[in-house]
Amino acid sequence: MPSELEIAMESLIKVFHRYASKEGRSGTLSRRELRELMENELTNFLRSQKDPAAVDKIMRDLDTNGDGQVDFEEFVSLVVGLSIACEQCYQTTVAIKPT
Amino acid sequence: MPSELEIAMESLIKVFHRYASKEGRSGTLSRRELRELMENELTNFLRSQKDPAAVDKIMRDLDTNGDGQVDFEEFVSLVVGLSIACEQCYQTTVAIKPT
Repeated sequence: MPSELEIAMESLIKVFHRYASKEGRSGTLSRRELRELMENELTNFLRSQKDPAAVDKIMRDLDTNGDGQVDFEEFVSLVVGLSIACEQCYQTTVAIKPT
Repeated sequence: MPSELEIAMESLIKVFHRYASKEGRSGTLSRRELRELMENELTNFLRSQKDPAAVDKIMRDLDTNGDGQVDFEEFVSLVVGLSIACEQCYQTTVAIKPT
């Protein structure tokens, strides 16, 4: 049976490909696919972004090779940034107990 | 209800702290805690490493600031590396279908 960490890694891959395969190049997210992924999978984060152009800005930041597409490595850097931000909240606001 | 991606991000944080809180500094993984995490959570990956000093080498690679401890950002770089490696297998060996 896979561990919790292995399931989490599998989820990153599955969620990325669920949206990347919707249109155009199947191995990358177009701007529209990224928007759909963020609207469905990062609803709370997107709601906290008051700027209506937030997805476009995130796309520009993530698309480090400038091809108008977000590949898996670029997508993971978003997940890492959000996870580190969440972890800092966790460290400062929650008493750390073994779960 | 949290999305699959949010659950995955939460799992990264929870798994890290489950092991980091076992001894010494609660916000970082010691070598022993990293070994325990990898033995329990990355069993298949560790089994594929034939070198008995694999955990020590990984510790050295991850511990970019050289303090003998792995913090969350350093831990996430391991998860990212493994996820990218897994994703490349996924791209080359599995027909990509929406799930």
